Amino acid sequence: METEMSWETIDEVARAIAPIDEGWLQKACAHLDTLTKPIGSLGRLEDLAAQIVAIRQDRFADPLNKAVYVFAADHGITEEGVSAYPRAVTYQMVLNFLGEGAAINVLARQHGAALHVVDVGVDADLAHAPGLLHRKVRRGTRNMLKDAAMSEEEVAQALSVGARFGDEAAAAGYSLLAIGEMGIGNTTAASAITCALTGAPAANATGRGTGLESEGHTHKIRIVEAVVAKHCLPPSGSLAPFEILRCLGGLEIAAMVGMVLAAARHRIVVVADGFISTAAAALAVAIEPNVHGYLIAGHRSEEPGHQLLLYHLKLTPILSLGMRLGEGTGAVLAMPIIESALYLYTRMATFASAGVSEASR
Amino acid sequence: METEMSWETIDEVARAIAPIDEGWLQKACAHLDTLTKPIGSLGRLEDLAAQIVAIRQDRFADPLNKAVYVFAADHGITEEGVSAYPRAVTYQMVLNFLGEGAAINVLARQHGAALHVVDVGVDADLAHAPGLLHRKVRRGTRNMLKDAAMSEEEVAQALSVGARFGDEAAAAGYSLLAIGEMGIGNTTAASAITCALTGAPAANATGRGTGLESEGHTHKIRIVEAVVAKHCLPPSGSLAPFEILRCLGGLEIAAMVGMVLAAARHRIVVVADGFISTAAAALAVAIEPNVHGYLIAGHRSEEPGHQLLLYHLKLTPILSLGMRLGEGTGAVLAMPIIESALYLYTRMATFASAGVSEASR
Repeated sequence: METEMSWETIDEVARAIAPIDEGWLQKACAHLDTLTKPIGSLGRLEDLAAQIVAIRQDRFADPLNKAVYVFAADHGITEEGVSAYPRAVTYQMVLNFLGEGAAINVLARQHGAALHVVDVGVDADLAHAPGLLHRKVRRGTRNMLKDAAMSEEEVAQALSVGARFGDEAAAAGYSLLAIGEMGIGNTTAASAITCALTGAPAANATGRGTGLESEGHTHKIRIVEAVVAKHCLPPSGSLAPFEILRCLGGLEIAAMVGMVLAAARHRIVVVADGFISTAAAALAVAIEPNVHGYLIAGHRSEEPGHQLLLYHLKLTPILSLGMRLGEGTGAVLAMPIIESALYLYTRMATFASAGVSEASR
Repeated sequence: METEMSWETIDEVARAIAPIDEGWLQKACAHLDTLTKPIGSLGRLEDLAAQIVAIRQDRFADPLNKAVYVFAADHGITEEGVSAYPRAVTYQMVLNFLGEGAAINVLARQHGAALHVVDVGVDADLAHAPGLLHRKVRRGTRNMLKDAAMSEEEVAQALSVGARFGDEAAAAGYSLLAIGEMGIGNTTAASAITCALTGAPAANATGRGTGLESEGHTHKIRIVEAVVAKHCLPPSGSLAPFEILRCLGGLEIAAMVGMVLAAARHRIVVVADGFISTAAAALAVAIEPNVHGYLIAGHRSEEPGHQLLLYHLKLTPILSLGMRLGEGTGAVLAMPIIESALYLYTRMATFASAGVSEASR
């Protein structure tokens, strides 16, 4: 069991996050223009390289050590029939992760990212599952149609779980982290969080999740509307993100928020995955805006709420492949592109070194 | 010097291209639905996996051996001042490729693609450049504002160069090929080809290339208009693509057309890069529509004409990162994603094997 972290302590983590360095950013942009390619012709790869250099500063040329953390938890709201899959699938998929059979296993192995699977709230006894990181706070959240999803103590504990993994990731030397999740019902939580953060109506922020048909989708929209209406949240302010998280979140979402905050404090590049992961990143940014500089959007998922969050965060995703799987898959799939951006920055010849003529002006 | 290949011979290559196998395509789609993920949730990766399985058939599970061929040549049209860079940059960049300093060197090394650089028409003496594949047909094309860019013999020779490399690639066991190029002035040729293939006006098909300012861009549009008007090409028909290529093409473009045709004949997956590479792919499809099934669009470049060609070919690019560099960079950058698609297909557990519950219907 994790030692509980108080609100103050998470606030301290957040306050320790420095903005990314403007001087390094400018230095990086100047260097990019000396490389043997037309100015700006690497497009988004140039932005990515400059961002990473500004985050990593004098360690920019070190290899990127990659990891993906997948946080699993169940959701009380599944009582309301919001998912195409039964709740037991969270547990079954955790076993699939441990058995190396899921999409994230294949992608993490291919792209050289160390995979860590964390039980932060699965509604099953996983105590003896080997290879799993056991940090269960509670067997799933409460049904947020009736109650806040978590108590203050539970949300603090889940935030702390994530923050500790952020510290451990830094100690292990990881420099590029993907944040993934598994939790039947968690697109409903992400939709409610999106409504609370952006003011979007439930119909715009609520998608088909793992594959609801039309009727199920309409029902899910009504549930999200009712949930958001129930928890009369205060207007956006310093405490609001924690309250949004407590009332509408999930244990895995809270853990991801904690991990994003701690990772940014340790100047680790964080790759958000799809809708749920980005909802956590958006809450982390709401808690501390400096987090934004450490974030990369791995991909744009098919969930309509994800688009709203990306727009809200002013993040341009690297990939847009119509994926809607979660598990960190879109984030890990973007990692070779992110590495390419940095390799191009560090390894390409300059016009001067290669004796190539520059453009006429 | 290559032995010349007659029109009939290239036609024979084209006629030997089989459509991709419908039976394997259906088998692949059925298998994808048994994997432990919501139906369709891997988005475009599922299409890519199914396409590769349908191309490779019983060898679908073999590793993808990757290579990129970069064809370099100069263009007579540079006399008209259509590029921000001097013509000598083609030659200088070839030396940069051989010195491992260009973007494509960095990306090919990172992503495990063997890089082959071919001089098919650079206006410089590269006879003693080590590591270069010497297949020069002519030191650059003619100025297509005044003459056809190539004679029938020259275009046949350049097509043959590419077709031979397609044969060699098959013999070497490559199964995933990127087609790249280097040639100052070649976006002008690609724009003219795009107008001829799609009927688009020059203003829509002509971009800023390596970075023209507004005035230079306007001038380039006028040149493309004049070039297209000059070569009164016959309406689309069996001979038209060769005539478009001869009048408006480039030696590197012809070589890419030849390589795409031969690769498809050998059932090799071909990844098109940006505007010029896709113009070659579009000509190959115009010559033989069965080529289409073997093509993957690696990325969407910033060149407006590329968008027209992708639409014309009904290809959805994997990446859209605002790149406009050529050299095969966008195609090689897409390779890890293409490999991921296949790995997911071959390595993920099924619902049955992992004991995961399926969606309720």
